[in-house]
Amino acid sequence: MRLTSYTNYALRILMYCALHPDKLVRVQDISQAYGISRAHLLKATRQLGQLGYLENVRGRTGGIRLGKSPEAIIVGDVVRHTEELDEFVECFNDSKNTCPLIGVCKLSVLFAAGLKAFFAELDKVTLADLVSHPAALLSRLDGETVE
Amino acid sequence: MRLTSYTNYALRILMYCALHPDKLVRVQDISQAYGISRAHLLKATRQLGQLGYLENVRGRTGGIRLGKSPEAIIVGDVVRHTEELDEFVECFNDSKNTCPLIGVCKLSVLFAAGLKAFFAELDKVTLADLVSHPAALLSRLDGETVE
Repeated sequence: MRLTSYTNYALRILMYCALHPDKLVRVQDISQAYGISRAHLLKATRQLGQLGYLENVRGRTGGIRLGKSPEAIIVGDVVRHTEELDEFVECFNDSKNTCPLIGVCKLSVLFAAGLKAFFAELDKVTLADLVSHPAALLSRLDGETVE
Repeated sequence: MRLTSYTNYALRILMYCALHPDKLVRVQDISQAYGISRAHLLKATRQLGQLGYLENVRGRTGGIRLGKSPEAIIVGDVVRHTEELDEFVECFNDSKNTCPLIGVCKLSVLFAAGLKAFFAELDKVTLADLVSHPAALLSRLDGETVE
């Protein structure tokens, strides 16, 4: 049971953009800051754009920036979009299930309740909360000291 | 983000044993009932034995049975043992982390809170609760109707 790297990268991309609000960020910058390959980041960037979390500005001087205010980006919502929750356990997905107990077993209801509680925690936090202490984060990302 | 098959199998093994309390169960029986390969079940059976959830009776007429009462087996505890939770996100594990934000980022605290809430739900349910309606479950597993 682990978060996908994809979700992890999506959250890091959003944090990077929130920490650099006044510029168009290049995927290359994010790649360098985190040591993640550009190819891995591009897929997440595209999906975040489709979901409205990022705005893509094309062209030679283009880049990405947040498509919503950090206060409006709820961590739980992002993770719901980037994780395939109907794959959490095979009985969540009729077409992939192999267990003969599907429909009469209480485990699927229990796991659904567990996930609901998990996301209720994540829904308490926005992207703005994640970057509410920018100096410490920026010094790690850019090696800069922010006054 | 998905439960490992290993945990899924461990829970199914425990349910099978709880549903057949008066006999020594063979792994082969569980394999046939669920359509899971014996090899996949054996690893989980061994760990469940080490944890005291199962008792192994050796020999030609041997088999497995619950090592504790179903009321004493809490689903959350089983899943905590079978899932590698320090792998949930890379920053949970210093030795595997690659993110430069480790230690100053709030995400790891948030995911830990989410997992705590997830397990709080699973801790509300015991193996006895999972098999509190044996007739419906047994008819699927054994094709039997229980009076």
